[in-house]
Amino acid sequence: MLDIKITKTTAPKEKPKGNLGFGRIFTDHMFVMDYTQGVGWHDPRIVPYQDLTLSPAAMVFHYGQEMFEGLKAYKGDDGANYLFRPDMNAKRTNDTNDRLCIPRVPEEDYVQAVKAIVSVDQDWIPTAPGTSLYIRPFIIATEPFLGVDVSQTFQFIIILSPSGAYYESGLEPVGIWIEDDYVRAVRGGMGFAKTGGNYAASLAAQVKAHDDGYSQVLWLDGVERKYIEEVGAMNIFFKIDGKVVTPMLNGSILPGITRNSVLQLCRDWGLPTEERKISVEELIQAQKEGKLEEVFGTGTAAVISPVGKLRYKDDVMVIGNGEIGPLSQKLYDTVTGIQLGRLEDKFGWRVRVD
Amino acid sequence: MLDIKITKTTAPKEKPKGNLGFGRIFTDHMFVMDYTQGVGWHDPRIVPYQDLTLSPAAMVFHYGQEMFEGLKAYKGDDGANYLFRPDMNAKRTNDTNDRLCIPRVPEEDYVQAVKAIVSVDQDWIPTAPGTSLYIRPFIIATEPFLGVDVSQTFQFIIILSPSGAYYESGLEPVGIWIEDDYVRAVRGGMGFAKTGGNYAASLAAQVKAHDDGYSQVLWLDGVERKYIEEVGAMNIFFKIDGKVVTPMLNGSILPGITRNSVLQLCRDWGLPTEERKISVEELIQAQKEGKLEEVFGTGTAAVISPVGKLRYKDDVMVIGNGEIGPLSQKLYDTVTGIQLGRLEDKFGWRVRVD
Ligand SMILES: Cc1ncc(COP(=O)(O)O)c(C=O)c1O
Ligand SMILES: Cc1ncc(COP(=O)(O)O)c(C=O)c1O
Repeated sequence: MLDIKITKTTAPKEKPKGNLGFGRIFTDHMFVMDYTQGVGWHDPRIVPYQDLTLSPAAMVFHYGQEMFEGLKAYKGDDGANYLFRPDMNAKRTNDTNDRLCIPRVPEEDYVQAVKAIVSVDQDWIPTAPGTSLYIRPFIIATEPFLGVDVSQTFQFIIILSPSGAYYESGLEPVGIWIEDDYVRAVRGGMGFAKTGGNYAASLAAQVKAHDDGYSQVLWLDGVERKYIEEVGAMNIFFKIDGKVVTPMLNGSILPGITRNSVLQLCRDWGLPTEERKISVEELIQAQKEGKLEEVFGTGTAAVISPVGKLRYKDDVMVIGNGEIGPLSQKLYDTVTGIQLGRLEDKFGWRVRVD
Repeated sequence: MLDIKITKTTAPKEKPKGNLGFGRIFTDHMFVMDYTQGVGWHDPRIVPYQDLTLSPAAMVFHYGQEMFEGLKAYKGDDGANYLFRPDMNAKRTNDTNDRLCIPRVPEEDYVQAVKAIVSVDQDWIPTAPGTSLYIRPFIIATEPFLGVDVSQTFQFIIILSPSGAYYESGLEPVGIWIEDDYVRAVRGGMGFAKTGGNYAASLAAQVKAHDDGYSQVLWLDGVERKYIEEVGAMNIFFKIDGKVVTPMLNGSILPGITRNSVLQLCRDWGLPTEERKISVEELIQAQKEGKLEEVFGTGTAAVISPVGKLRYKDDVMVIGNGEIGPLSQKLYDTVTGIQLGRLEDKFGWRVRVD
């Protein structure tokens, strides 16, 4: 149990009006906790949202020892504030931390910190349909030292950003670029971890895809460049011949919390699911045979993102006439329904914040 | 040509005495230049060494869009200040920047900035044998935005750190751990770039190697895990049966400036050199046949680092009786001789700073 010291701002900002967009507006407060080797995590506190002051030699600027998470707080239909499976973000944080040699954060403390900061800034949770309060926990190495080594000090910070609806007017299919040149991660690397380097590695391909009119990149495995991995910030699912298929967790893709939830729901509904290797060839073949029924991405940002178009080299596959498949729609309605307290929370995924 | 504005400190620090160590002491000033999309690089300046103030949402903390370089200034035997091939660092910076979607820095401006900051703090160049002023240029993404995207603003900063002799008493052979589990980089990734994520990925293996008494990790390729790549912060060379052999630049290893210099020297001396794939198997075989004559690392920090012991799984190879080979010694004496103005600078590698 953390003893969180709270210092409230004396100059609250005006709440934003109109389209919130994503990731540019921040609330009045932030959570901060320090780590010092030999002492452990200490001084958990909520303070007015403010700049960080760091030595130019702080290791995060040089050696990328950093990690982040992303989750959301929702204003429920009943007026209550809800989080969605924050324990999973806490667990994933520690999996990332282990790979990056960042000290673990006790999972109860983590969830307590998220709840505490959301509670303090709960008036910032937007209420328009589809909007939410995006929660960004992150940890950075702060020791001022130029040797390549594990930092002896860290900061764990949580900032909050009210964000607009991902879809302005209902689900919208996106075009996805299957990247055949750049590689994001490889087994033995840190692909399963939520750390800056994986995203830095992805920018060049993203620019290329955007220039070509595709909204996201779908990565192939780094060894054979044949097997589907994941999208820039989503996991990917295929409905092939009645089966729900998604790449297995092989160490080079992020174990998405939405992915996990979608698999549980599909199983609960009696749909056959498979977590396994999927080659691009298999997709092209399934498409030719008319068996590639639906493709969708899963992630905290969009929940479900139907894919209408998949490009691989000179092949462009149009999926389900570029329309939204029934499974995609049902999953979207169910997950958001649970998040907003509209549907029964049969798996105990919803966490209330007062 | 940059118009660098210089603001000198009014409170110069005391120069350190005794063992300088590495990377913990910083000089009185730093170079800073800003980048804004649509404007380009602007406001080059030298200011008192100071903390950075950044939004907690600055992209460098989240998505690892960052790069760094490392070079040194030496006090020559003739009392002049010298840099070693700074144009190569400028060039490598832009190769890194291209991969990371960081804007290029004109190479003349880059070298001018390095010379300017070293000139201002030239009294900080230590003079004891083996010591030098370590120069750390780096670039970080500073836009406060949580979307995974290319930052629209950056800072290019150069800090300086007087550093002690790498070898207290002459060259000393090190033990190297060939890593067979973790992977640092893969072709298509960003292994050739000098960016934080590559070093973050390397920490876990480094901890393992240190715990086992080895000073550095030697990485294998990420695809077949068979071919030698490079050491944590050095390139690696083998003298096998009279030939000087080093892994080719395949996109997943850093093109070291010391590596390049060593190859030029060996060729100049008429030694046969090969840049190619080298498998662990080949090394084990060469060792068995008594043909593995020397192994050494090359890098700015140590210049030449003789390897006395190589561990691969259950195999421990002792190289040259754990002693320093004649080629390692000759290369060390030659490169440091050129750096310090002790030897003729036949390739034009030395750059004077007044
Ligand atoms: C690389 C990557 N894959 C997948 C996901 C989806 O994970 P989650 O469902 O936990 O949001 C994300 C986004 O968070 C991501 O960044
Ligand atoms: C990964 C890596 N390889 C090789 C080197 C050696 O490069 P250089 O000789 O330019 O210092 C370094 C250090 O700078 C490095 O970090």
